[in-house]
Amino acid sequence: MIVIKVGGSLGINYDAVCADLASIVKAGQKAILVHGGSAETNRISERLGKPPRMVTSVSGYESRYTDRETLEIFEMVYCGKMNKGIVERLQRHGVNAVGLSGLDGRIWEGIRKATITILEAGKKKVLRDDFTGKIEKVNLKLIHLLLNGGFTPVLTPPAISYDGEAMNVDGDRAAAMLASALKVEKLIILSNVPGLLREIQDERSLIPEIPFQRIEEFAGFAKGRMKKKVLGAVEAIREGVKEVVFADARTALPITEALAGKGTVIH
Amino acid sequence: MIVIKVGGSLGINYDAVCADLASIVKAGQKAILVHGGSAETNRISERLGKPPRMVTSVSGYESRYTDRETLEIFEMVYCGKMNKGIVERLQRHGVNAVGLSGLDGRIWEGIRKATITILEAGKKKVLRDDFTGKIEKVNLKLIHLLLNGGFTPVLTPPAISYDGEAMNVDGDRAAAMLASALKVEKLIILSNVPGLLREIQDERSLIPEIPFQRIEEFAGFAKGRMKKKVLGAVEAIREGVKEVVFADARTALPITEALAGKGTVIH
Repeated sequence: MIVIKVGGSLGINYDAVCADLASIVKAGQKAILVHGGSAETNRISERLGKPPRMVTSVSGYESRYTDRETLEIFEMVYCGKMNKGIVERLQRHGVNAVGLSGLDGRIWEGIRKATITILEAGKKKVLRDDFTGKIEKVNLKLIHLLLNGGFTPVLTPPAISYDGEAMNVDGDRAAAMLASALKVEKLIILSNVPGLLREIQDERSLIPEIPFQRIEEFAGFAKGRMKKKVLGAVEAIREGVKEVVFADARTALPITEALAGKGTVIH
Repeated sequence: MIVIKVGGSLGINYDAVCADLASIVKAGQKAILVHGGSAETNRISERLGKPPRMVTSVSGYESRYTDRETLEIFEMVYCGKMNKGIVERLQRHGVNAVGLSGLDGRIWEGIRKATITILEAGKKKVLRDDFTGKIEKVNLKLIHLLLNGGFTPVLTPPAISYDGEAMNVDGDRAAAMLASALKVEKLIILSNVPGLLREIQDERSLIPEIPFQRIEEFAGFAKGRMKKKVLGAVEAIREGVKEVVFADARTALPITEALAGKGTVIH
């Protein structure tokens, strides 16, 4: 079984990801697709007159400040437009997909952090009423039910708090948690770059391979959104996933190429 | 088992519907909730600068003209905001809900009608590129899997065409098709009116009971959106559903009251 995460940044070829996934699933491989939707959420937020607010935590991670209105826009784009668009593509390719969020069947459960301390212009600032959180528990019952029934799950944030509130969580780390809970062989993290780069502006500076014991040396190359991908990879491998691949979602066969080792392989 | 449809019109008390459903499910009743989202879709469409276009078919039924952009807005609101909002409420009440569209597991499958003939200012007009359709087949495998696994399905349009395209379908008729396929005892159709009224402006003119053999006499009282509800009820009873209740979704205990016979009971 494999878990594939496809990001939500600009340039991602969802048609190719879905066509490629369909051929892999039809060849008998069990797979779960986890997806994002950040670029489209930004676009829709702007159009709705509620521009996105990206914040950087004191520990240096970037995230979307998610008040209740933002959470609802987030759900519209991630669970509505993106999720159903992917399910539709897979169905058209003959894959019986089922689109779900972490709320459904409480798949991704954890703790809401309503207060977030951010750095703004070098100063600490406390934001309240934030609907973000951290997944602590993956409830696999629904996932197993679907896989055993011949369905292909397509998952997206939000997750659910222990109190039953929807909460925004990072998609890469959510995929890593799922891969860990399922003890899959491979976790593939697709985005709009070829993998982890030494120089962020130079796609030829791709790091092809990282032995896990040397991950600390390489983690420093990760910038922006790549930082959470590396964090997710570390968590997944620590929990028993054999291999994590960062690969390019802009190509014609993104998953097939990642399975063949193209991208950054962490093992 | 019961199927409950809750509309998407203004004034509906979703908190009450979910709290009431939770108490019924926790008492051991198996239930499936089908919901709409028309008022919210209109509001979001306006805000996105793509105002809704309601059209009336030559046979007199009102529907939303659904080009591809409208379909995506429709999915954002129905499958994103509304569906996940309902799942979240149910989870908070301790019901392990799973939100799905008719695309997921191909639950609602049918034929797309890309061309629609409408009446506009008394003249016939043909509209193309419409993503609406008619459900012909209910695929119950996923529904049974969920119900047997202890999950409560929360369903919403769109449905899926035989070719794997998302298509807008009427929620009341979709609920009726589901109720028929499952041969449930009761189908409850909740909206922002107390039931079928003799005089649309006078809520005291409620028709409390309609024996099915006299439905033709009463169908004439249905105006606007109520016409499809009556059509759905007729289809459901013809296919073996014992009782259909039209009831009020603005009260504190909408489902409990409908089960007690408040509203318009067709049997």
